[in-house]
Amino acid sequence: MAAPAPTHDKGEMNEHILIEAITPSVEEGRHPARAIAGRPCVVEADLLAPGQNLVQAVVRWRRKGGRRWQEVPAAPLGNDRWRAQFPLAELGRYEFALEAWLDLYGTWLADLRKRVEVNEPIASEVLEGVALLSSLAEGAKGASGKTLRNAVAALQAWDSAAAEGGRTALAIAEEERLLAAVSEVAPRTGATIPEPVLEVIAERPRALYGAWYELFPRSQGTVPDRHGTFADVERRLPDLHALGFDVIYLAPIHPIGKTARKGRDNALVAGPDDPGSPWAIGSEHGGHMAIEPQLGTLEDFRRLVRAAAALGMEVALDLAVHCSPDHPWVREHPDWFYRRPDGTIKCAENPPYKYQDVYPLNFDVQPWRPIWNAWLEVVLFWLAQGVKIFRVDNPHTKPFAFWNWLIENAQLKHPDAIFLAEAFTRPKIMKALSKVGFSQSYTYFLWRNSKAEFIAYLTELTSPALASYFRPNFFTSTPDVLPTGLQQGGRGAFALRLVLAATLSPSYGIYSGYELCENEAVPGTEEYGDSEKFRIKVRDWQAPGNIRDLIGRVNAIRRENPALQELTNLRFLKTDNEQMLVYAKSDAARSNVLLIAVNLDPHNAQSCHVQVPPDVIADGPVGSYEVQDLLTGASYPWGATNYVRLDPQVQPAHILRVERRSS
Amino acid sequence: MAAPAPTHDKGEMNEHILIEAITPSVEEGRHPARAIAGRPCVVEADLLAPGQNLVQAVVRWRRKGGRRWQEVPAAPLGNDRWRAQFPLAELGRYEFALEAWLDLYGTWLADLRKRVEVNEPIASEVLEGVALLSSLAEGAKGASGKTLRNAVAALQAWDSAAAEGGRTALAIAEEERLLAAVSEVAPRTGATIPEPVLEVIAERPRALYGAWYELFPRSQGTVPDRHGTFADVERRLPDLHALGFDVIYLAPIHPIGKTARKGRDNALVAGPDDPGSPWAIGSEHGGHMAIEPQLGTLEDFRRLVRAAAALGMEVALDLAVHCSPDHPWVREHPDWFYRRPDGTIKCAENPPYKYQDVYPLNFDVQPWRPIWNAWLEVVLFWLAQGVKIFRVDNPHTKPFAFWNWLIENAQLKHPDAIFLAEAFTRPKIMKALSKVGFSQSYTYFLWRNSKAEFIAYLTELTSPALASYFRPNFFTSTPDVLPTGLQQGGRGAFALRLVLAATLSPSYGIYSGYELCENEAVPGTEEYGDSEKFRIKVRDWQAPGNIRDLIGRVNAIRRENPALQELTNLRFLKTDNEQMLVYAKSDAARSNVLLIAVNLDPHNAQSCHVQVPPDVIADGPVGSYEVQDLLTGASYPWGATNYVRLDPQVQPAHILRVERRSS
Repeated sequence: MAAPAPTHDKGEMNEHILIEAITPSVEEGRHPARAIAGRPCVVEADLLAPGQNLVQAVVRWRRKGGRRWQEVPAAPLGNDRWRAQFPLAELGRYEFALEAWLDLYGTWLADLRKRVEVNEPIASEVLEGVALLSSLAEGAKGASGKTLRNAVAALQAWDSAAAEGGRTALAIAEEERLLAAVSEVAPRTGATIPEPVLEVIAERPRALYGAWYELFPRSQGTVPDRHGTFADVERRLPDLHALGFDVIYLAPIHPIGKTARKGRDNALVAGPDDPGSPWAIGSEHGGHMAIEPQLGTLEDFRRLVRAAAALGMEVALDLAVHCSPDHPWVREHPDWFYRRPDGTIKCAENPPYKYQDVYPLNFDVQPWRPIWNAWLEVVLFWLAQGVKIFRVDNPHTKPFAFWNWLIENAQLKHPDAIFLAEAFTRPKIMKALSKVGFSQSYTYFLWRNSKAEFIAYLTELTSPALASYFRPNFFTSTPDVLPTGLQQGGRGAFALRLVLAATLSPSYGIYSGYELCENEAVPGTEEYGDSEKFRIKVRDWQAPGNIRDLIGRVNAIRRENPALQELTNLRFLKTDNEQMLVYAKSDAARSNVLLIAVNLDPHNAQSCHVQVPPDVIADGPVGSYEVQDLLTGASYPWGATNYVRLDPQVQPAHILRVERRSS
Repeated sequence: MAAPAPTHDKGEMNEHILIEAITPSVEEGRHPARAIAGRPCVVEADLLAPGQNLVQAVVRWRRKGGRRWQEVPAAPLGNDRWRAQFPLAELGRYEFALEAWLDLYGTWLADLRKRVEVNEPIASEVLEGVALLSSLAEGAKGASGKTLRNAVAALQAWDSAAAEGGRTALAIAEEERLLAAVSEVAPRTGATIPEPVLEVIAERPRALYGAWYELFPRSQGTVPDRHGTFADVERRLPDLHALGFDVIYLAPIHPIGKTARKGRDNALVAGPDDPGSPWAIGSEHGGHMAIEPQLGTLEDFRRLVRAAAALGMEVALDLAVHCSPDHPWVREHPDWFYRRPDGTIKCAENPPYKYQDVYPLNFDVQPWRPIWNAWLEVVLFWLAQGVKIFRVDNPHTKPFAFWNWLIENAQLKHPDAIFLAEAFTRPKIMKALSKVGFSQSYTYFLWRNSKAEFIAYLTELTSPALASYFRPNFFTSTPDVLPTGLQQGGRGAFALRLVLAATLSPSYGIYSGYELCENEAVPGTEEYGDSEKFRIKVRDWQAPGNIRDLIGRVNAIRRENPALQELTNLRFLKTDNEQMLVYAKSDAARSNVLLIAVNLDPHNAQSCHVQVPPDVIADGPVGSYEVQDLLTGASYPWGATNYVRLDPQVQPAHILRVERRSS
């Protein structure tokens, strides 16, 4: 079975191996997959060779653009599926490709083994082995060459007539050092390397897991109607740290435009003291690289970033790619905006809605490259100030190619940069934004309410194919969206949705005021009543009825339980009550198994029987076991079927950790 | 919103549209999809553009290698999915590609419409429309140019102050002839054409739908132990035609080797009168292009082919890519075979099994091209004799690239050629053979017995992704496989598995003797007892206990009901008995709806309640309806839930056609 000579036309090669269904691969390799640095990148593929041919394969990998490829061997999983993994030691982009070839020696050896097992004569087969090994030994140097030549000599000296002769020959042929030597020198016969080379981006763990807290810096003061400052934000940090948050995401901190400024409750004309929407960015004080003077200075901001870092927290900024009418760019680059035939600039609108205080950018203008460059400059500026996380406003209204370029270039200099897409739009557009570069995305969690909806949506989000590039961040509300369920469900709804967000998704967030169960809406809408977007709001953070204790406890549980820091390790359990959602989260080794039960009814006590399949708990047989409720400390004996009752007035959920098992 | 100039680097383009999830596409376009000539090729894709941008798209298509591309417009299906179809008028290969671009005029028009609906002023927007249309009119000739210029003039003359002014402008802007002119002349801004160009092979309907009958020509005589002839086969044709078969597939008809010929029951030494296995091809009378002299002459064979054609049937040949030790090629090309170190040629084996009468080909020998050419010559020879269907023996032990090349080249000259893969091997290898060229494949139907197994397997086989390249042929048994269920289930099992094969898959087949419920096996194996592979077997085709009536009736039903001639139109219905399998088959228009109930228990009567969701029957609400059992003629009133009882001694199945509906 000689190999086709390497001089054959590629198109004419008598190729042996089909390589298919490679994972991870996003849209046939057109976009990179995502992974977390410090963990291995697990690659799988179907390797198909006809007949009895055995196959060998490696995954070749390198840092993107690196000089040298490294190789790791792939191992069969059964059903023609193979797996290999390589380390993602550093942040940034990696490239990988498979290479598979016919294992001529292995195929010969497997045939020999079969013959020996059924006591067939093998003299002729041994001669074939001698020929195969001799050709491998030709030109092979060092220890491997010696091992090969020794094996040839041993097989040549082998006595086919001896009792147990077959076993002796087999022992020579399958000796471990020999196999290593063969795989070192054997040519890769019929090797197939599929194109294109695939990519994976290794991001830091925070891209997958974190608890976010969104606040308006100007609302962090203590005197009603007085503009808060970065110093006020800094004073709040210890409390937010005590509550267990990882990321403090600030509504825009830039100078706010005066022209067409909105008044309270989105009024068309602002009063003299109305601060305007922080998303109306740009004034005589500057644009996206400047700071609203009432908040403080750039140095104040830097101090805030450092103070957060000292507590193990990060500050995230809002990146809103548009300008107020007073933004310096409107004067400097009027062509960057959409202009009417009369030369005036268009504000953002979605008839009948008008955003008079915001001018969108026209990415189709010629030349468009300066606009891209300007935004990269903005992002690099804040990265240089120590900001590594950006929550990007409305990315779905800008070109995919722009985000792809912006994020790739930002991460090239700052591979620890994380971009969260605030896109509430059609499902495939949201997925596309993740494909082209966003590290995380807002989700439809806000509008999922029933058990069937949660199961369907989370089943989609946790599927390996989607999770290979799309990472959800479950915000429970945003300044733009106060979901109906929270408006009507009161404190119970705030509590249960907090537990759902924090345990269904490794990344989740709340918008300040959530802990106070603020649920006043503009009637018939999802807008907050007297929205903080248009005013300064000073709150009593200890107001009665708050759910701070629950939030602090849940965030602590998230930190202590690795199972809550992963996305795809979710499994729903069967219950006999449509109001009771029960699910398991578990680490790969099942050393950390959580069983979480949530009563979806914010008003009434509900109960159910829940079935726990044994493999949720352990690999072997499972009898009874003890679970501890991490919210209350109470312990319960559990087993295959269990009774759960939850009264929202007392406790909206169990977060049970499996503590002791008997089989 | 000017378009990026076409001079931009492709890699730098401010691209707008992502095109994803194109169907049909097999393994990212590396293999062609399959379709049936005379039907349209339906193409779908996700087209993703950011923001409010509207999109237009076409599918470009041509005969493979043709000079000119044609275009058909794609239409949106919702959820960013688009569809177009183009005709596959002829047999052979077609190429297609999508092209999508921003619909600048449509986007402007949609915005205008929104503004008019909420009574906003539109004077400025109309000026934009004038500019857009003027630029399109530039250089536009003929009727379209005139239409564009007229619209420009009308919008310029438009009175923004008039009552209902908005509606007047809108009426001008959305006038049908104007839209046609715009789409004729508008440049394709930001156009995306994904690569690679995709392929689809249009085969004839018989590649999808047909009833096969397998026979050994030498067993078609009437005198025990006397070798049958092509004339005997010809005499059987009217009966096989009456039974409703479409394809008569002959076990190999070539000269049988004498060296190492097998005797009855696979005996190592043949007796003087043993005819040998017809798969041991090649003797002094010739090889794969010759005919076993005892069967007749090439002219006799041609007459058989013509006689079948006269009855609307086809003769299929077996293509077994190996040789007996007496095959002329063994002498002429000893290098084409696997040779031992002592120069002797190896027979086929899979230790501990040995096929002494068969020499496999060594496709890895140098030069290997002559072997490929020799087999193409064989196939082209039989195609020239009027044989258009080949059942290929054990294709999974030969290179994928060989089949890909052989089938493509055979179909290039004979696009009506059909290749059935007799591969019983690992699932992904079977799929790979279809990907590289086979029109049909044998399946695991032989080993599926329980309701859960049938539902799981058929759900896989009928999924659009698999069905886009893999077409099953459900043989109920083969000369190599007499499934345990038939061995033990008696006549009832033969009847129920006939109905299953013939109604679950548009292609199915039986091996002669099935109609007589022959179920004697070599104990503990799936081999037929005293196998016809090694002897001449003369049967009484009217022997008592036969199921000829059922077969004839079922084949007639298949011809009369288009729903049974399709693969993916299968839907399983819920029943409350694990022995009762009930499913619906329906044409796209639901003018031919069949409800098929099969009792999987060959011994005992079984009953169930079966639920028929209304959309199985019709689009609207469904009350009661009448069904007729096409096997018995009996009629029943049916509705949402129905009681079914089947006694295998009386009737193993219902094939119910929905006859009259009341809503």
